[in-house]
Amino acid sequence: MIEMKAMSTTALQEKYSLLAQSYEKFQNQKLKLDMSRGKPCTEQLDLSNDLLDCLSKTDYKTANGTDCRNYGGLDGIAEAKELFAWFLEAKPQEIIIGGSSSLTMMHDLLCRAMLHGLPESEAPWSKLPTVKFLCPSPGYDRHFAVTEHLGMELITINYLEDGPDMDQIEKLVAADPAIKGIWCVPKYSNPTGITYSDAVVKRLANMPTAASDFRIIWDNAYVVHHLTDTPDQLLDIRKACEAAGHGDRVFVFASTSKLNFPSAGIAMVSSSESNINWLKKHINIQTIGPDKINQLRHVRFLKDQAGIEAHMRKHAEIIKPKFDLVRDILEAELGGQHIASWSNPQGGYFISLDTLPGCARKVVAKAAAAGVLLTPAGATFPYGKDPEDKNIRLSPTFPPLSELKQAMELLVICVQLVSIEQELARIAA
Amino acid sequence: MIEMKAMSTTALQEKYSLLAQSYEKFQNQKLKLDMSRGKPCTEQLDLSNDLLDCLSKTDYKTANGTDCRNYGGLDGIAEAKELFAWFLEAKPQEIIIGGSSSLTMMHDLLCRAMLHGLPESEAPWSKLPTVKFLCPSPGYDRHFAVTEHLGMELITINYLEDGPDMDQIEKLVAADPAIKGIWCVPKYSNPTGITYSDAVVKRLANMPTAASDFRIIWDNAYVVHHLTDTPDQLLDIRKACEAAGHGDRVFVFASTSKLNFPSAGIAMVSSSESNINWLKKHINIQTIGPDKINQLRHVRFLKDQAGIEAHMRKHAEIIKPKFDLVRDILEAELGGQHIASWSNPQGGYFISLDTLPGCARKVVAKAAAAGVLLTPAGATFPYGKDPEDKNIRLSPTFPPLSELKQAMELLVICVQLVSIEQELARIAA
Repeated sequence: MIEMKAMSTTALQEKYSLLAQSYEKFQNQKLKLDMSRGKPCTEQLDLSNDLLDCLSKTDYKTANGTDCRNYGGLDGIAEAKELFAWFLEAKPQEIIIGGSSSLTMMHDLLCRAMLHGLPESEAPWSKLPTVKFLCPSPGYDRHFAVTEHLGMELITINYLEDGPDMDQIEKLVAADPAIKGIWCVPKYSNPTGITYSDAVVKRLANMPTAASDFRIIWDNAYVVHHLTDTPDQLLDIRKACEAAGHGDRVFVFASTSKLNFPSAGIAMVSSSESNINWLKKHINIQTIGPDKINQLRHVRFLKDQAGIEAHMRKHAEIIKPKFDLVRDILEAELGGQHIASWSNPQGGYFISLDTLPGCARKVVAKAAAAGVLLTPAGATFPYGKDPEDKNIRLSPTFPPLSELKQAMELLVICVQLVSIEQELARIAA
Repeated sequence: MIEMKAMSTTALQEKYSLLAQSYEKFQNQKLKLDMSRGKPCTEQLDLSNDLLDCLSKTDYKTANGTDCRNYGGLDGIAEAKELFAWFLEAKPQEIIIGGSSSLTMMHDLLCRAMLHGLPESEAPWSKLPTVKFLCPSPGYDRHFAVTEHLGMELITINYLEDGPDMDQIEKLVAADPAIKGIWCVPKYSNPTGITYSDAVVKRLANMPTAASDFRIIWDNAYVVHHLTDTPDQLLDIRKACEAAGHGDRVFVFASTSKLNFPSAGIAMVSSSESNINWLKKHINIQTIGPDKINQLRHVRFLKDQAGIEAHMRKHAEIIKPKFDLVRDILEAELGGQHIASWSNPQGGYFISLDTLPGCARKVVAKAAAAGVLLTPAGATFPYGKDPEDKNIRLSPTFPPLSELKQAMELLVICVQLVSIEQELARIAA
């Protein structure tokens, strides 16, 4: 590959013309491919089909005799707490096993902070003139949407190699009591694939914050979602916070959405016992209890840590070839041109693609015009606005390999077309 | 039975002594009976055991091809909307089928009103100096708890024979813009068993309200929960509101909690299309979608209107003897004494018992001291305070008949003991 900037205008135009022909061929195929969301594919869902009938007409009680069919049990069944305690790194009394959505749990937690305040809040956050929230970006659009919807001011935090820019964060939170928290996807981060280094975790746990009720929303969505046999290691944030004397600082969330069925999973939260007790008091107003039958179903199906790990290896077998394909095509078609860079995650659900600044929206639009739906450019940033307009989140898991190949072959053409357009415009200017 | 007031002091003391002996016998039995909550009994839960395994490894798609295992479908699957449309009296676009708890749906709706306001609100309710909510009482403690938790001022509304006191309500809502809504359990009301008359429904729909964003929370929890073959008829509130030009006034809630499994049911809401669209925008921030698998499970199991009706008749067969037993014992032991009155519901989950004023707490305490747990006296009123201290909610469904009989035999003794204590104190004073 020749670096674009080293090419003459004529060479660029010739290359553009060839690429445009290829693009046209794709357009004529009238593709309808969707790479927009991090959805498991059918083969992954099939891995959990035993969940559909693993209970029987006589199997609805927990070991302690609780009838999972009836009311009660605000914080989830004992077996589920035991099953997930290892990846929540928590004791049973530090865990709530809830309904089907960890996003809902996070949303509801922040609603409670708004309406009631946290235990150490001087006032409900909705009574304050401004509430600000830190958003390491590119990040998860649905996180940012929750805090935006609640009227908070979103502050973009840059990512470095080993996690969010801690210098930036420490400076901000030390100075501004209106900054009440930070969104974190600490492992195989959505979409960067980054796992926070021990140093980053420790600094998050230790940093002084002007707000006494500062909270880390630790969405460990991809805690066991490895693509390789040498998974990233993430430091235990709750232990780090305790050691720093900030035991109440963090709420850890996880779910089975991408272990089993995204629609019908179970979500969970762990935190200090005092945070959990506070949360239970609030949840007790909202519901009589979660779906215990579905919790029992997951316990029966996943069994134990070994069961979960074996299950996740089956996922990796299905999706790793897709990640490999995406990277192979990016490398083959864009490598060495200095018009794009991309992540090489060891787990999770995304590959993060950075185009030249100012190109991402155009690339996504061009792909859409040829029938390939990508995550909207900008979606990975607060307010849907990527300040450099360069990040595109790629979700390789859902499409079959053959479709993924087509989509990627089109995408790399789009990236090159838009890059050349921009370079030609620069030369002309 | 001789009326208590017609008895001499000596006769009262003799009667008290005999009752006290019976009470002591109960105490010696060391009973441990629970009549405190409206929980279905094991036999009722068993009616739905097919739900546990009615799906198979190949049955996870809706008729339109939606894979219920994966993400998506914010407002529920089409089949579930179709199945429940008849008792929600709504079109599919006026329905959201959600997670496992209608209480959560109601709670979350009011949180949204607090944080964001309703479509026609001038401001989020949390920004107003005072928000008031009408609470027909005795009513459902968990309803009142939601509005109390949100810092609203609860206004007790009396019940008349055919529903809440509309004169009282009309006067209040016409004058006070801080009154933002009313809790209603319109059919087989918890705990009075009352079904609102057509006149009450029409007046609720038509009444002028000072608040432009006034809402009726219509918790039709017992919509198909009949005890007889001549069920109460309830007027369609949504149609009445539309006819009155107040189409956005009401949100109707229901769930399958007491059709099938309380822990693992599905909850639903219907309202005007504009209300539902507003709600969907908010729910879209909170979750990617509800548990569609569990919705499909209920569709497969309940099938259609006839299926639901046949299923509910089986419930009635199990619980009607319990309601009959409770009333028989009340009538036999307390009838004609003018020390208590009780409801005679045609459906629902409760019998409402009124003692003499000032006796309910003592009766509940006395029953507890002999091992029978009742709903705390006062629980059916705002702030847990029954102004006359006379209402006791009886929940006959959960205990087996033999235990229910023991509990009721003790209860009527407690009612008489406390009534005589009060009468003797009155005479002595």
